[in-house]
Amino acid sequence: MGMTMTQKILACHAGLPAVRAGQLIQAKLDLVLGNDITSPVAINEFEAVGFSGVFDKSRIAMVMDHFTPNKDIKAATQCRQCRAFARKFDIEHYYDVGDMGIEHALLPEQGLVAPGEAVIGADSHTCTYGALGAFSTGVGSTDLGAAMAVGETWFKVPAAIQVVLTGKKRPFVSGKDVILTLIGKIGVDGALYQSLEFCGDGVGALTIYDRLTICNMAIEAGAKNGIFPVDDVTRAYVASRVNRPWTAFAPDDDAEYARTVELNLGEIDCMIAWPHLPENVHSAREGGDIAIDQIVIGSCTNGQLPDLAAAAGILKGRHLAKGVRGIVIPATQTIYRACMHQGYTDIFLDAGCIVSTPTCGPCLGGHMGCLTAGERCVSTTNRNFVGRMGHVDSEVYLASPAVAAASGVAGHLVHPEEVMNA
Amino acid sequence: MGMTMTQKILACHAGLPAVRAGQLIQAKLDLVLGNDITSPVAINEFEAVGFSGVFDKSRIAMVMDHFTPNKDIKAATQCRQCRAFARKFDIEHYYDVGDMGIEHALLPEQGLVAPGEAVIGADSHTCTYGALGAFSTGVGSTDLGAAMAVGETWFKVPAAIQVVLTGKKRPFVSGKDVILTLIGKIGVDGALYQSLEFCGDGVGALTIYDRLTICNMAIEAGAKNGIFPVDDVTRAYVASRVNRPWTAFAPDDDAEYARTVELNLGEIDCMIAWPHLPENVHSAREGGDIAIDQIVIGSCTNGQLPDLAAAAGILKGRHLAKGVRGIVIPATQTIYRACMHQGYTDIFLDAGCIVSTPTCGPCLGGHMGCLTAGERCVSTTNRNFVGRMGHVDSEVYLASPAVAAASGVAGHLVHPEEVMNA
Repeated sequence: MGMTMTQKILACHAGLPAVRAGQLIQAKLDLVLGNDITSPVAINEFEAVGFSGVFDKSRIAMVMDHFTPNKDIKAATQCRQCRAFARKFDIEHYYDVGDMGIEHALLPEQGLVAPGEAVIGADSHTCTYGALGAFSTGVGSTDLGAAMAVGETWFKVPAAIQVVLTGKKRPFVSGKDVILTLIGKIGVDGALYQSLEFCGDGVGALTIYDRLTICNMAIEAGAKNGIFPVDDVTRAYVASRVNRPWTAFAPDDDAEYARTVELNLGEIDCMIAWPHLPENVHSAREGGDIAIDQIVIGSCTNGQLPDLAAAAGILKGRHLAKGVRGIVIPATQTIYRACMHQGYTDIFLDAGCIVSTPTCGPCLGGHMGCLTAGERCVSTTNRNFVGRMGHVDSEVYLASPAVAAASGVAGHLVHPEEVMNA
Repeated sequence: MGMTMTQKILACHAGLPAVRAGQLIQAKLDLVLGNDITSPVAINEFEAVGFSGVFDKSRIAMVMDHFTPNKDIKAATQCRQCRAFARKFDIEHYYDVGDMGIEHALLPEQGLVAPGEAVIGADSHTCTYGALGAFSTGVGSTDLGAAMAVGETWFKVPAAIQVVLTGKKRPFVSGKDVILTLIGKIGVDGALYQSLEFCGDGVGALTIYDRLTICNMAIEAGAKNGIFPVDDVTRAYVASRVNRPWTAFAPDDDAEYARTVELNLGEIDCMIAWPHLPENVHSAREGGDIAIDQIVIGSCTNGQLPDLAAAAGILKGRHLAKGVRGIVIPATQTIYRACMHQGYTDIFLDAGCIVSTPTCGPCLGGHMGCLTAGERCVSTTNRNFVGRMGHVDSEVYLASPAVAAASGVAGHLVHPEEVMNA
């Protein structure tokens, strides 16, 4: 049997001619990533083991994005520890307040991930970079601590689910709706420790940002990683960002898949994952009686410029319903600036939203928009678990930027069409 | 003996022909103010007493500015309580995320304070509005609770210190340097329960924003209030904002003052209040060996557009020193937008700063830039008490926007001249 994209990348990084699902391997890493809440744990492990140095100061990224600008003393203390470590070992890709962005938007933007590379990060949404045809996955902080020293880690080679995409997206439908539909179909454990390998002639109809959103939420189906083939869309994105050689890995024709799932993009509508699991997916045309208190547009899932453009397209000339708070968070400083220059920030302010400096903030109930009991939020983030954005009696509805924006205008769950045609 | 400006305003609001220092009076209020951390206490008192309604729904302002956008569940719960109260009593000037700004910048901007009015707020820096020739002072939340119901409160009429201003400001000198100089001269208890009544031909040389900053920090000298005479500068500011009748109160020629302090503006240089008291004032030319970790430009003291302009003037074409975090917080949504349109936001981003949505945040160690042990911040805020911005072993240096910006570029305490001439 041949290998999947993921398996081929892993084989290459393990220095093996071939690997098979279930095999334990040791693989070299092109980049290891930590943030302000996982790096301190990793640094403690690094120091406890007594490592004397890092494997490559140019292959470690440390991004202070979760609780920054420092939400409290603990956050400030964690950042201080990361900063000291980064200074001590001259970590080249250390990002602090001012050049910081949300890690999974920042790393692709800064050209730190290329097709065919192997990346681990002590953050579950590290799987985002599969959009570029890289293998990337989240690990625990202990694994990160060791990987910072040795530049390798172990993996059990994952089996794969082949996701065949056909057709083209309908208006208002985005990558978010595609991944919500898929998770709704296979469930939050539907891809447990498997790769989600996307293919089919529908791939070309997805922007790189659609793909980033889709791979970002692969973990929400339990997947080890999500990955797209490298095509012209990938090459166009990478061309201006990556100036080192990279390799596109295509699956073998006889690659083995645990199963195949087919998705016709043309049949996908705007979707909302209701509380309290990402698999609890409903059409955005349902739930008109569910009033909301807040919308959040941003995060590693949907904080890219096209995400903000989609929201601005809905909000232009409209205002949030009375009593709805609108929190817009561009994912990086570059996006924050572009959002301003494109006029989106003006649109958001006119609509009654605030525009925050980049931070993960509300997604994980960190800061910048936490919820209390009884409050409901339509959010472009990736998890709607109990208490995810604050109080255990609050509710998070996951949706695309267009759906979140439209719901903010309506004051309840709504399909963007309804707002645009109103 | 005649009356001071403050005494004349109080007499008018008490319905008395005259009042004298030390007299206990009951005065009608033009506006009562609460924020997201003081209003909940006031509402609890209001409800405990069993008040059935508010005295005037158009004369209560409630501003969700301290820990918003909600930094945590507690903040969200406090805002929810305020929101419910505001809805119940149809409070007209309730400001939430999206139209919110820092209360003491927002109220003057929105025309909610006019010369000659009497204002209380459950926030110590309510004294800010003396810049417009109003009497305003901070009260406890219990007093706010009662005042929301009855529209009056009691005062002990304050004696006054006459502050005679002469001359004109030198380059880079602002209202912040004037008030720091004054506090350095008279001490943090130098005006305890007294009015600081500004007068002299130096007044005309101060912008309304200088005056807002000066009155804002009157409480840092222990003053009951600070107040400026109403002149063309006041009238120009108020003209486009206030469309109700108002009265300018001038002091009687034979007004009694406890003492007189003279300040020649031309002799005032840029100043920095070192830890841990606002009276610990040093020239900005001292402290070149004091390295810093962060600058904060914003707050009710210095978050106005001219404050941001002064900082941008220093930062244009320059970058923060390595390792310095720069946090810029426009005080209101209007200022946030103007900051963007004036090109200041671009300058701040180029310099390596972040620009936050309006919030009091870091000033009181709330969020958006808290400090940990050993960290030093030059901040345009108003208090540098032990632990004010976070950890008890952090240090806050109070300064003007120009000094904060210059110090950010230098990486240590510095006079703006040194950076501009470098």
